[in-house]
Amino acid sequence: MRNSGKSPTMKDVAREAGVALGTVSKVFNGIPVGKSYKQKVEDAAARLGYSVNSYARGLRADKTRTVALILPCLDHSFFSELANAVSYELTRRDYRLVIATTQFDIKAEARCIQMVRQNRVDGIIGLTYAPGLEISDDLPYVSIDRYISPSIPCVSSDNFSGGALAANRLMELGCAKPLFLRIGSQVIGETDKRGAGFIAACDMKGADYTAQRFNDEDGLEAIYRFLDGHIIDGKLEYDGIFCCTDRLAFYVINHLKRRGIRVPEDVQIIGYDGTRQFFTAEYYCSTIVQPVKQMAETAVNILLNEERSVAPALICLPVSYAAGGTTCEPTAFDEEALQWQANI
Amino acid sequence: MRNSGKSPTMKDVAREAGVALGTVSKVFNGIPVGKSYKQKVEDAAARLGYSVNSYARGLRADKTRTVALILPCLDHSFFSELANAVSYELTRRDYRLVIATTQFDIKAEARCIQMVRQNRVDGIIGLTYAPGLEISDDLPYVSIDRYISPSIPCVSSDNFSGGALAANRLMELGCAKPLFLRIGSQVIGETDKRGAGFIAACDMKGADYTAQRFNDEDGLEAIYRFLDGHIIDGKLEYDGIFCCTDRLAFYVINHLKRRGIRVPEDVQIIGYDGTRQFFTAEYYCSTIVQPVKQMAETAVNILLNEERSVAPALICLPVSYAAGGTTCEPTAFDEEALQWQANI
Repeated sequence: MRNSGKSPTMKDVAREAGVALGTVSKVFNGIPVGKSYKQKVEDAAARLGYSVNSYARGLRADKTRTVALILPCLDHSFFSELANAVSYELTRRDYRLVIATTQFDIKAEARCIQMVRQNRVDGIIGLTYAPGLEISDDLPYVSIDRYISPSIPCVSSDNFSGGALAANRLMELGCAKPLFLRIGSQVIGETDKRGAGFIAACDMKGADYTAQRFNDEDGLEAIYRFLDGHIIDGKLEYDGIFCCTDRLAFYVINHLKRRGIRVPEDVQIIGYDGTRQFFTAEYYCSTIVQPVKQMAETAVNILLNEERSVAPALICLPVSYAAGGTTCEPTAFDEEALQWQANI
Repeated sequence: MRNSGKSPTMKDVAREAGVALGTVSKVFNGIPVGKSYKQKVEDAAARLGYSVNSYARGLRADKTRTVALILPCLDHSFFSELANAVSYELTRRDYRLVIATTQFDIKAEARCIQMVRQNRVDGIIGLTYAPGLEISDDLPYVSIDRYISPSIPCVSSDNFSGGALAANRLMELGCAKPLFLRIGSQVIGETDKRGAGFIAACDMKGADYTAQRFNDEDGLEAIYRFLDGHIIDGKLEYDGIFCCTDRLAFYVINHLKRRGIRVPEDVQIIGYDGTRQFFTAEYYCSTIVQPVKQMAETAVNILLNEERSVAPALICLPVSYAAGGTTCEPTAFDEEALQWQANI
């Protein structure tokens, strides 16, 4: 079936492929579906001459071809990387990017949303913390790292699996008393699942763990006091620490070094984010790497998708572990033994 | 004299203060003028109820209240900081920010400029490298770190003084054979003055210096090869290095450490930018700190200034030196002696 004259829509592709509309949407959003379904959709799209690009171009003429990204700030490794990836994804689709930074003022977030609405944009990608933030359904909105409501798609890394991965890695590397440290906003967001995943993995192994949460208002000083309170005769009570961000890991490592505690000999530390020095060099620490490029691509795809209502409410993209010198990595031989143990 | 009814302009302020229009422009652009002139302008502005903000609001109604920032990328410490500061300056003036990243593709820069023009913005702040980039005079444009033509204002840090400051500091700290290393674009920009300032300061002291330039195409490998070629019997021929960026300093330090050369004991190193780990913690190395916030504020002020033609063609903002562990800083007592020596 050819739909000549006007550009094919996703519905045409679904009909041609003999699959549900949701399946087509998933394929174009990069969300996993069965291999044969993916093939069917791609073949149908090729036959019809449908492409994500031509599709984006088929948007109504009153569109501004502008997307707004709302972020706390840009001088922060994860936010800079995310903004860079979103900019790349929009530019290659001939969209332009408006960036609004709230400078961590949560009262500024609603104002930012209002501002970008007034100035007409086709959609918003928001990484926000304001409690009770109200987002109306009339403007396409994709949230990053925070689930707001079933009608607003949220994209994040798989924080829960990341937390579990960190806990399991610490235990595999010999830690008997792992600690989870978190500092962050009081608003519950997807990133809180890092601690939940850590706890679940420790519970499963019956590990003697501790999970300690601090709010931004407490400051790093509260974490330093907590650590100092658990140093007895110059020895830290914990032999492994999972920090909710690489930035926190960096400050914790520096503090422990000031106290004469060696990393990784005395305590092994894993962070979260996959932050590299100067964005290109070594990791700051052993870390759970966020798939920043895929997160940006997924958020942009969903936002520009005409049938956005078929998008899943929450998409958690897979993370990976990377050694960065703050854990005692086994030799290749030991690694094999670990894998073997894990499989029995 | 009161100009009631309509908002006062800069011309009104100049008349009221009894100073030249250029002086008023300088004061509002944060460019140093004599103290008494500054006071006169500020008093006149207060009497007339003139403020930079009300002034910006007085722009013609057909303005978009949107400014575009063109950058190579956002996942780079200096660019992230600059973008963050520009975002802050625009937001507090009720302007919105469009960001276009060229991902270091210099062919993309002209396209970016075209794109933001088509989409209507009130002005552009550009940090670009494309050789022969043509910028028409009809759209307000402020360049960062690259002088394009007399009619296009350029804002940068005082790169020449920064280079001289680095050279003088190395020599004060006892370096007899200082080296300058640069890697960058083939297009001449303001940042090339870092090397020129270094050379001028070394010449003035009759120092036995070397200045070595590499292009991005050469890659870091070329710098490593150069350094290796100047290690004789495990000893580097140079006792001080000024690197054109902190990022280059970081890679140079790591390479020298791999070769068993100690920093700062065997060779002292100063970078340029003032890059902090995670944007908030320690400096990566001893460094010449760029005044990023002031650069952003100055660029935004000039861009939104109605009488932009009075803006100077090139504004170089003062830099400062910060110790960051890769130089052998003197004790407070020695520092005093150094100051005393410098004054005789």
